[in-house]
Amino acid sequence: MEKIVSLCKRRGFVFPSCEIYGGLANAYGYGPYGAELKNNIKQLWWKKFVHDREDIVGIDGPILLHPKLWEASGHTEGFNDALVDCKECKKRFRADHLVEEFTGQDLEGQLEEMTKIIQAEIKCPECGKQNWTEARNLNMMFKTEMNGISEAVYLRPETAGAIFIEFKNIVDSLRPKIPFGIAQIGKAFRNEIVAKNFIFRLREFEQMEIEYFIDPEVDWEPLFEQWLQWQEEFALELGIKSNQLRRYEHPKDKLSHYSKKTVDTEFAFPFGTRGYEELFGLAHRADFDLTQHAKFSGQKLEYFDAVNNRRFVPHVLEPTVGLDRLVFASLVAAYAEEEVKGGKRVVLKFPVKIAPVKVAILPLSKKEELTKPARELFNNLKTHFICEYDETQSIGKRYRRQDEIGTPYCVTVDFETLTDQAVTVRDRDTMEQERVKIGELEVYLKKKLA
Amino acid sequence: MEKIVSLCKRRGFVFPSCEIYGGLANAYGYGPYGAELKNNIKQLWWKKFVHDREDIVGIDGPILLHPKLWEASGHTEGFNDALVDCKECKKRFRADHLVEEFTGQDLEGQLEEMTKIIQAEIKCPECGKQNWTEARNLNMMFKTEMNGISEAVYLRPETAGAIFIEFKNIVDSLRPKIPFGIAQIGKAFRNEIVAKNFIFRLREFEQMEIEYFIDPEVDWEPLFEQWLQWQEEFALELGIKSNQLRRYEHPKDKLSHYSKKTVDTEFAFPFGTRGYEELFGLAHRADFDLTQHAKFSGQKLEYFDAVNNRRFVPHVLEPTVGLDRLVFASLVAAYAEEEVKGGKRVVLKFPVKIAPVKVAILPLSKKEELTKPARELFNNLKTHFICEYDETQSIGKRYRRQDEIGTPYCVTVDFETLTDQAVTVRDRDTMEQERVKIGELEVYLKKKLA
Repeated sequence: MEKIVSLCKRRGFVFPSCEIYGGLANAYGYGPYGAELKNNIKQLWWKKFVHDREDIVGIDGPILLHPKLWEASGHTEGFNDALVDCKECKKRFRADHLVEEFTGQDLEGQLEEMTKIIQAEIKCPECGKQNWTEARNLNMMFKTEMNGISEAVYLRPETAGAIFIEFKNIVDSLRPKIPFGIAQIGKAFRNEIVAKNFIFRLREFEQMEIEYFIDPEVDWEPLFEQWLQWQEEFALELGIKSNQLRRYEHPKDKLSHYSKKTVDTEFAFPFGTRGYEELFGLAHRADFDLTQHAKFSGQKLEYFDAVNNRRFVPHVLEPTVGLDRLVFASLVAAYAEEEVKGGKRVVLKFPVKIAPVKVAILPLSKKEELTKPARELFNNLKTHFICEYDETQSIGKRYRRQDEIGTPYCVTVDFETLTDQAVTVRDRDTMEQERVKIGELEVYLKKKLA
Repeated sequence: MEKIVSLCKRRGFVFPSCEIYGGLANAYGYGPYGAELKNNIKQLWWKKFVHDREDIVGIDGPILLHPKLWEASGHTEGFNDALVDCKECKKRFRADHLVEEFTGQDLEGQLEEMTKIIQAEIKCPECGKQNWTEARNLNMMFKTEMNGISEAVYLRPETAGAIFIEFKNIVDSLRPKIPFGIAQIGKAFRNEIVAKNFIFRLREFEQMEIEYFIDPEVDWEPLFEQWLQWQEEFALELGIKSNQLRRYEHPKDKLSHYSKKTVDTEFAFPFGTRGYEELFGLAHRADFDLTQHAKFSGQKLEYFDAVNNRRFVPHVLEPTVGLDRLVFASLVAAYAEEEVKGGKRVVLKFPVKIAPVKVAILPLSKKEELTKPARELFNNLKTHFICEYDETQSIGKRYRRQDEIGTPYCVTVDFETLTDQAVTVRDRDTMEQERVKIGELEVYLKKKLA
């Protein structure tokens, strides 16, 4: 993992946020290549799940939503993590994680039990002392105040809430045929007691979420399986391999009372002891959300099926994925180190669709007789592809840099170009070089990058 | 304005947020067509100012940033609005706005003066009484707490801060040649005392901002003018007309001490008494931000010019625009009502690039002999364009709906299609209809939509 974190910083993918001010508790920001990578993943997701489908529409709702919404969803009361402080060194820990690491027991939710075990048996992993507060609940929502609203307002802890409250508006204005989905990409905020593992667990993160509304009478199991496949398909499009994924079905006795089934698609992240961690989630939430919002708002949240003349509260399947985790997984899947002529090269083997830069144009020398045609070539190609022009340093260093940012094709302009009107195209993955006529280059690259 | 607000709700562009819970203080969310429109505008901006330019890179930083940053930028101390409460009806007002409306005087920042005038001369516009608190400052940043950070943390009131603190990382990892810019699109939050005018003034809004770093020794005036032109060019690409724009230069005595010049590009929004309101901003901020962040962080924030062997703190031009305002302005510019055969049609004449849907496929009847070829056509076209398929209601009503969401081309499949293998293409703006062979349709539309 350290190698990826270091590459991300060195090449402008991901920076520790507010680094000049000493950083901010595991917060990160996306640099130029990271922002492009993330945008590409967003756009592919939107294309696959919104544009290419007739049954899903996208929305874009606010982060600050009505406080009542979080009462209805249960977040105000129940969205807690168990917290315990070391009185000696003032360090703060997740109580359930401490207990699980020490005893292997999962005591989530049982504060008294956890306190007993921690106070009696566990030493502070930070200072080695054993002087603990009681374990207590901490609500994970970020709280703030808004002019004009007397109650506390929260930063949304998930994007789903902004979707459910628009159910009525969407049904009224678009009259969709069931089954239909509402998709959204956006920030969510959770005040984690401990944020860690690079961009895997952030306090501020971005979700890509769909609420897929179905008729409660239909057989949902094949559709559930279908959604698992669509999620996996999407991961493969980003270059993630099947053997880096596995499914984890939540045991029945751990499910929320309303959920009929929840399956995570996990990815082999390069940290932790479990080997795999949640990437995608898929939950059958039945009619819990619409029913709760109907109850708390006093509005009817129903669907009228004109064909069968039936009125009902739809059930919902909720496929969701953390965008930052997906960026992380794509980086892990793409990262490779290879022996080249006794040396080592680091390369990000992104699928062309998500590569931040598609083509680099590199004149072999800084002399004007080469930079002039190279610039011309660049100006032409950049109207078709995301291109970079680079004339600094040796060609070897420039290749290495393009490999590290994952550029699929490098085009070098050399002295021969002046006589043969051709350039050398280097393939990132095979490192094979091919001589291509300038006049044919655009078509050549279009085919390769399709 | 009411017509646009109503169209936005009826057709799924913009909904009042949390409406089922009685709304949330002038908050709005983007419905399906609004989300597409907003995304299209974002992508055009990113293409024009990031992808098509060699001198600007994009980043994507967090909303929650280090508290020290807002001390350095002056927001913690100085980002205030003057507030006054009516003790009778408990309504809250902007003190400076009250005074300006009553006396025409701009007393911004002079709390005592404002209090004197309000208490002596102004009646509450809400209840008519005259029983005021003193005018006092209210910091407009939303405040929250973050685990692991002892100080208060704020939601960023502008995206610029997230850019300045990455200056060093960008310079170190990308080694850009000056002048260069860093661009960002993202949410910002201001706890306005009164939010109003649809999506013009929101407490949660999205900015598209660039910090453009220049050599302090160069003549910046032509570049400043150039940026004003680039901003206006972008507005025109969205369908905004030149005569809907005007420039407003901030008078020298109102400028921040560090700013050399600030010019707003204003748009003729359909509200208010001034006729025009700020859409784009452009400010010369000199070296204020980098110098402040250097001072508060203890880090050197300089640029080394290898060609001339000089080291200096760059100056900065800051072109900025509120995305929500830009969506609003695009809707205003596109909105038209026309007499058609004695009736009225409402149409959004978006430029094709920002239209949420490009082509609608409409079979003239629901009979399978028409819906089958119409579906086939749809399945082919939707791989090339954002398409909608609609077979409900009369063709007149379907045209009207597509006009209201601004779809440039409607394709109808009729009974003649079965014999002549052609369809009718209707142009949104001219309403002219053209018969086009199915085999030529893709090329025809590609040309029209290019």
